Amino acid sequence: MDFELKILGSASALPSPDRFNTAQLLTVGNQINLIDCGEGTQMQLMRYKVKHQRICNIFISHLHGDHYFGLAGLLSTMHLQQRTGPLHLFGPRGLAEILTLQFKYGGTQLTYPIHFNEVDTTAFTKIFEDKFMTVHSLPMQHRVPCCGYLFREKQKPRHLLKSKLPDFLTPPQLVRLKWGEDIFTENGEVLVRNADVTTDPKRSRSYAYCADTRCKEDILPYISGVDLLYHESTFLQEMAARAEYTFHSTAAQAATLAAKAQVKRLLLGHFSTRYKDLTPLLEEAQAIFPNTNLATEGKTVSVLE
Amino acid sequence: MDFELKILGSASALPSPDRFNTAQLLTVGNQINLIDCGEGTQMQLMRYKVKHQRICNIFISHLHGDHYFGLAGLLSTMHLQQRTGPLHLFGPRGLAEILTLQFKYGGTQLTYPIHFNEVDTTAFTKIFEDKFMTVHSLPMQHRVPCCGYLFREKQKPRHLLKSKLPDFLTPPQLVRLKWGEDIFTENGEVLVRNADVTTDPKRSRSYAYCADTRCKEDILPYISGVDLLYHESTFLQEMAARAEYTFHSTAAQAATLAAKAQVKRLLLGHFSTRYKDLTPLLEEAQAIFPNTNLATEGKTVSVLE
Repeated sequence: MDFELKILGSASALPSPDRFNTAQLLTVGNQINLIDCGEGTQMQLMRYKVKHQRICNIFISHLHGDHYFGLAGLLSTMHLQQRTGPLHLFGPRGLAEILTLQFKYGGTQLTYPIHFNEVDTTAFTKIFEDKFMTVHSLPMQHRVPCCGYLFREKQKPRHLLKSKLPDFLTPPQLVRLKWGEDIFTENGEVLVRNADVTTDPKRSRSYAYCADTRCKEDILPYISGVDLLYHESTFLQEMAARAEYTFHSTAAQAATLAAKAQVKRLLLGHFSTRYKDLTPLLEEAQAIFPNTNLATEGKTVSVLE
Repeated sequence: MDFELKILGSASALPSPDRFNTAQLLTVGNQINLIDCGEGTQMQLMRYKVKHQRICNIFISHLHGDHYFGLAGLLSTMHLQQRTGPLHLFGPRGLAEILTLQFKYGGTQLTYPIHFNEVDTTAFTKIFEDKFMTVHSLPMQHRVPCCGYLFREKQKPRHLLKSKLPDFLTPPQLVRLKWGEDIFTENGEVLVRNADVTTDPKRSRSYAYCADTRCKEDILPYISGVDLLYHESTFLQEMAARAEYTFHSTAAQAATLAAKAQVKRLLLGHFSTRYKDLTPLLEEAQAIFPNTNLATEGKTVSVLE
């Protein structure tokens, strides 16, 4: 099953013709999650030939324009393309009010339902769950209410070793074996020991999205060991004071957090427009956490099972 | 003095990576007016190296997203770039309410003042005047309140023929000659006849912007003889019924209006995404009004004095 991240935008507040504002796609199975939606996101989706209709959930981190000014346009385009499937929208207080006002003055009655979920940006809380994954909010520390999001695949079924399975097992018993149970006789004795006929399931993958924020270690327990961590790194460490003042992070801070959390891989993004060449940001982080990459437009990262 | 139109976006509702939503720049003298501001307008301004800070006035036609979803982003960018000069914003009811809500949740206190002017979209009214030009609203017929805008240079001073000017004229008398007056003696006799010492001024140029609308002839008196008419032409004439139903126009209708109004030049825009090749739209219009062009991204039209 796919577990793949695609970057649509890497710019911080100021976009440019080459750098779009923040937007990312996380594909889990056949479902696409859009994370933030800066201006121009719908053009980026077209550029990379992503069908809008496959987007099931949209997660907005905060209400600075570079993270959501593309949302109304994307939702309008879905409407014009006659979407009918429901859309789940997650974001802080105010988002629904803004969109409702825009649609009111635009005379727009959407062809599809939006289920809006107001997220408490101050708490680590499970905000979404389906059969494939859970999503938790990750409290960030920014100038306005802001949260990241933690995406985790659910536990997967154990592998059945067909050559070792007794013929008498019923379908419900096979399901119980897949989920780790032993099979017992009516007298309560072990009939089939799970460990004898199954092997461990494929592992559950995870992605933590952290933007925009001062770098903060109190989220370490939540992001510990994730396969992929995206952390904003607006500045180089030489601008740590500016990062602190503007509630942003440096590449070195992001890398230090990644190392402490023992994540498998780090992606940097949300680059200040002052950095035409991003290499110094990458090198600064790699010196601390080698498995770091830049989250630039069009980059795709697949996490293997 | 410059009187120049630059096209930033030509798409109707659905943008694409190659066609941006509606936005135009009208430069009059050293002042830039932005007309509509679809998503991505700020990227287009960067692409064409237009300094945001030179934009003095912004005119929004209506509150369908493809005409204003780039506005909040542009205003935010002006703020981040520490603009201090005032900005005059014109648009229908609702625009200020939407922007105010967005800035509230974004925690944004702009570094510059915005003077918002709510436009009555149902009337032909003078909404702006400075020493160079006047701007009138042009009532459109669309699914939501919508107006076009008529930009007219003010009357210019007559040319003084230096070789024919008597030496005794005072500076105030010269000014009166420039504005067409004769100079009289204290007894009320003509001392200097204006026609003897001046020639006609450079002509005052005009631009009429009509989007989005059913084609309507009741604006003919207002746009009569303009140097440049932009008229939306979302569809070909073969889709006239669809144009009528959606309150849009066809290329043939726009050209017919241009011919009846005896404008000097017609620009077509706001093209439906179904037309990958725009030549049929151009040809349809040129068959009726030969001096027609396509208002495509990057095109610049200068109106000579």
